[in-house]
Amino acid sequence: MNYLEQKILQECEVRPGNILKIDSFLNHQIQMDVMRFITLEFKRRFADTKITKILTIEASGIAIATMLGNSLDVPVVFAKKSQTLNSSDDKYMSHAYSFTHKKQNMVFVSAPYLSASDHLLIVDDFLAEGEAVHALIDIARQAGATITGIGIAVEKGNQNGGRILREEGYHLESLAIIEEMNYETQTIKFRE
Amino acid sequence: MNYLEQKILQECEVRPGNILKIDSFLNHQIQMDVMRFITLEFKRRFADTKITKILTIEASGIAIATMLGNSLDVPVVFAKKSQTLNSSDDKYMSHAYSFTHKKQNMVFVSAPYLSASDHLLIVDDFLAEGEAVHALIDIARQAGATITGIGIAVEKGNQNGGRILREEGYHLESLAIIEEMNYETQTIKFRE
Repeated sequence: MNYLEQKILQECEVRPGNILKIDSFLNHQIQMDVMRFITLEFKRRFADTKITKILTIEASGIAIATMLGNSLDVPVVFAKKSQTLNSSDDKYMSHAYSFTHKKQNMVFVSAPYLSASDHLLIVDDFLAEGEAVHALIDIARQAGATITGIGIAVEKGNQNGGRILREEGYHLESLAIIEEMNYETQTIKFRE
Repeated sequence: MNYLEQKILQECEVRPGNILKIDSFLNHQIQMDVMRFITLEFKRRFADTKITKILTIEASGIAIATMLGNSLDVPVVFAKKSQTLNSSDDKYMSHAYSFTHKKQNMVFVSAPYLSASDHLLIVDDFLAEGEAVHALIDIARQAGATITGIGIAVEKGNQNGGRILREEGYHLESLAIIEEMNYETQTIKFRE
């Protein structure tokens, strides 16, 4: 069992409706021991991967992407979820349904920040149905960029996102894959 | 002129309506040279300040907060802007008007992540009217926490946020303070 899996067992609560609360160290409070583990582990697992830029989506993905970008010395681009008045320029756009917020989000990256010469590592904190990652893939393709890997901190292995991405042939690395979790007993089982 | 100010002159565009576009290195794409400068400069300016936790607000503040949290080895908490189904717990809430998005945002931090023993450094990428920082101050006060400093990357010195915070007695450090900017001539002047 790795450091992230241990942390999940120690600190996470299973909520009704198949929800895992990872607020205490990953997506509300951010603990540095966990961030350092995630950074080192992605570096190890993608050591042979060409990466010129890291692509993520606001908000929680930014912490992981920035730590890794600093370590690999490559820039980070985070996709935004709603159109702002500051961003009237050409952009690549896609859509992602948020099961958490129960709404369809527009997701976009301004055109100058992705190009056909980019080799992208896509990272995010959480993978369930894969809506956000597929929106990022769609955006990367519009830019003509190459996706060389996908790094996820916590994957819900009992949902479809990870399976589909692996079937599509992506090099997906999830640091903790939750196979089963139970609200009644508060038990969590990881994929070996 | 410091590194961030140089970067602003080199890469930023002044848009109509007193808008400075810092998308290329701070709040859409994130460049690591800038992040490292910001981190080192905040460490230097708050070297004598007691900091047990860094408080910021999603989304762009997360990159700065995480880099600094890693460097100071303290946790980060980022306030969220809309209520999610994952967050049904006790929370500290405030409101901030976003001039960028022209809407009132609810801002909240779940209660377990701030306490009366915390000494908080509040950080954000941008300070204009100070709506977001004042929401964070309001939340910190509700938790009984001590605010020991406020660190801002880019302050618009011709708006009111910075002046009010200094009058209120906060130790505010802004790494680049824009005194004037002009869309017609594309000139930017910094406070000495």
